[in-house]
Amino acid sequence: MDAAHLLGVIALMLAGAKLFGGLAQRIGQPAVLGELLAGVLLGGSLLGVVNTHDHVLHFLAELGVVILLFEIGLETDLVRLVAVGTASLAVAVVGVFLPFVLGYGLCLLWGLDNIAAIVAGVTLTATSVGITARVLSDLGRLREPESQIVLGAAVIDDVIGLIILTVVAGMAAGAEVTFGGIASITGIAFGFLIVTLGVGTFVLPRVLNLTRHVDLPGTATIAAMIIALGLAWLADSAGSAMIIGAFAAGVLLAKTPQAKEIEHGVASIGHFFVPLFFVMVGAAVDLSVLNPLDPANLGTLTIGSLLIIVAIASKFAAGYAPFWLHRRKAVIGVGMIPRGEVGLIFAQMGLASGILDKGMFAAITLMVMTTTFVSPPLLRWLLPPSKKPHPIERPGGIDDLVTESK
Amino acid sequence: MDAAHLLGVIALMLAGAKLFGGLAQRIGQPAVLGELLAGVLLGGSLLGVVNTHDHVLHFLAELGVVILLFEIGLETDLVRLVAVGTASLAVAVVGVFLPFVLGYGLCLLWGLDNIAAIVAGVTLTATSVGITARVLSDLGRLREPESQIVLGAAVIDDVIGLIILTVVAGMAAGAEVTFGGIASITGIAFGFLIVTLGVGTFVLPRVLNLTRHVDLPGTATIAAMIIALGLAWLADSAGSAMIIGAFAAGVLLAKTPQAKEIEHGVASIGHFFVPLFFVMVGAAVDLSVLNPLDPANLGTLTIGSLLIIVAIASKFAAGYAPFWLHRRKAVIGVGMIPRGEVGLIFAQMGLASGILDKGMFAAITLMVMTTTFVSPPLLRWLLPPSKKPHPIERPGGIDDLVTESK
Repeated sequence: MDAAHLLGVIALMLAGAKLFGGLAQRIGQPAVLGELLAGVLLGGSLLGVVNTHDHVLHFLAELGVVILLFEIGLETDLVRLVAVGTASLAVAVVGVFLPFVLGYGLCLLWGLDNIAAIVAGVTLTATSVGITARVLSDLGRLREPESQIVLGAAVIDDVIGLIILTVVAGMAAGAEVTFGGIASITGIAFGFLIVTLGVGTFVLPRVLNLTRHVDLPGTATIAAMIIALGLAWLADSAGSAMIIGAFAAGVLLAKTPQAKEIEHGVASIGHFFVPLFFVMVGAAVDLSVLNPLDPANLGTLTIGSLLIIVAIASKFAAGYAPFWLHRRKAVIGVGMIPRGEVGLIFAQMGLASGILDKGMFAAITLMVMTTTFVSPPLLRWLLPPSKKPHPIERPGGIDDLVTESK
Repeated sequence: MDAAHLLGVIALMLAGAKLFGGLAQRIGQPAVLGELLAGVLLGGSLLGVVNTHDHVLHFLAELGVVILLFEIGLETDLVRLVAVGTASLAVAVVGVFLPFVLGYGLCLLWGLDNIAAIVAGVTLTATSVGITARVLSDLGRLREPESQIVLGAAVIDDVIGLIILTVVAGMAAGAEVTFGGIASITGIAFGFLIVTLGVGTFVLPRVLNLTRHVDLPGTATIAAMIIALGLAWLADSAGSAMIIGAFAAGVLLAKTPQAKEIEHGVASIGHFFVPLFFVMVGAAVDLSVLNPLDPANLGTLTIGSLLIIVAIASKFAAGYAPFWLHRRKAVIGVGMIPRGEVGLIFAQMGLASGILDKGMFAAITLMVMTTTFVSPPLLRWLLPPSKKPHPIERPGGIDDLVTESK
């Protein structure tokens, strides 16, 4: 696609996101639900405007989720995140173990061979932190303890997901998977997070302070973006995930004196990029697997429905893992449900390597779609929007602040 | 390149742009000069970090110049632009005719054949509106009559440049060039601008007003971005240039009640994208043609120097075309000098089709480089920075406004 055509597609993606996001909010749903629906509408199943395989669009969407996690990090208090650390860890571990075991067992019963059942089970494990964080942000509830637990668990989940991804990729390629190999991947992934947060706490505020000497508009925001993209790249190079690096950058900059200025500047950039990510997730949905009139879909719909039940029930149960807490555990459980793009990546790998057949891939797609679309309205129902939303979520954002203070 | 690597490259591009932009400003030069130098440093000639052929980076840079022209449009008063229209037209026409005739003659004398001399002459014609507009914006002088004349002339120049581009592309492909064909391209290019500005004046403010019903953060900014990208796409589809569509969108939205909010939101997005464009322009510079110790470069350096003299003198003279005006015509002339990416595109086409040899291509590259780098300091010298800069150019931008109004 040439540049002009891409600009047209991006304009349509943003217009669809804003239109359906606005409509979703009108009927009391999180805006992200509308953005996902706009993606389904613009994707290959219906209008065919958005080609999910386009290199540039794919990168813009990745940049969108990186910026989203950076924004979420900016709103996250490291001390509070560590305070709920044990609870998050319990939710994450149970939330990986339970879906995997139940999904693996179900697929064996359904007649899949061992390795196919393993891959299918794995697609049930990873939580899409992007969807949940966005919903909590839409509802103005990002700073509540339940939200912090979900956020921490989803980040740990993503780290575990990366470890599983590496192992599954090795299995798919026919390589031998050793305990030592898994241990080293695990060490690197968690090590990156701990080292970054440890070293960054001392280094980053000083780096940011240097930019005060640069007399250019938007310097603090761009310095923050440089740090976020740099840490995202570093995280990937260290065998972790880009979004974890971006999240860490946000957490580290949240305490700096420039945090408010950065938050406002990045919000404007995010308004452009973040919807592109959710529209791309929606556009990846293949509606044809849903047609019950096609007899070929009956098996897919049956195993798909069973996977949905397992996927929802097992993550919901994981919310009750920190049994010692007096918190709304249903909120935690529902927050862990959406699989989003992570589950799709696992499934795509299984399909590409021939381990999963097309029917099974379609069933997993159905499970991912349903968990992604079911969680926003459920969370909205359990957690009504906060009366006093945080500035970043407020309509008009910074401009309201300007008007108010006049 | 994978997404993580690209994020790292973008982080380095932004860091280089901010560092060298800040240094340039320290020594009293426009920031854009530093951004161009950062590009030279990161490009293939030196560090090799930025690959100018990368599909994604190329698109981000194009998006950058589209957003820049949108921002420039937002600061442009249509009434004042039309008021200086005759002067702009005179500057543009003389500024295309004179460089072409002189460059064509020089190249014939140098021994080039007729078609090669035509293509070389054509590379001297188009002004890079991006460079000049950015310098005037850096100096806080965008709203002065001289600046408006340069801006108008550069836009007309770009339209003429497109017409020439289409004709040259036809010639390079060996096609017959008819008068009717040229007339139709000309009609479409100017027709788009007139129809868009005419229809848009009535339609766009109403479209923008509809977004007031959407209760989402940053809606006016994103609606404006949708309009800008949409008009850029439409301009390209209509046979005009993307940047002209984006500029028209800016001019049309400048008068709406949401203009201030849009300006601030787009400025944050621009701080991210615009430097990527200038770094990419700098990265396209091939320093090896400058080495005087290489005997192969002597002929290149000689014809290159002659082209530079013609390029600077002819555009400078074009500034005096509106002889009836009592304005600082030297400012207008200097503002028209930079050729930037437009000249490089013409030269690249000539090289690819075999009309220009490598030495001639290098000489043209040298001319484009010099005109691009010479104009910012000259403009700065003729036009000291305004004492009271416009908010968009002020360090800190919107955040200063917040602080002030508190």
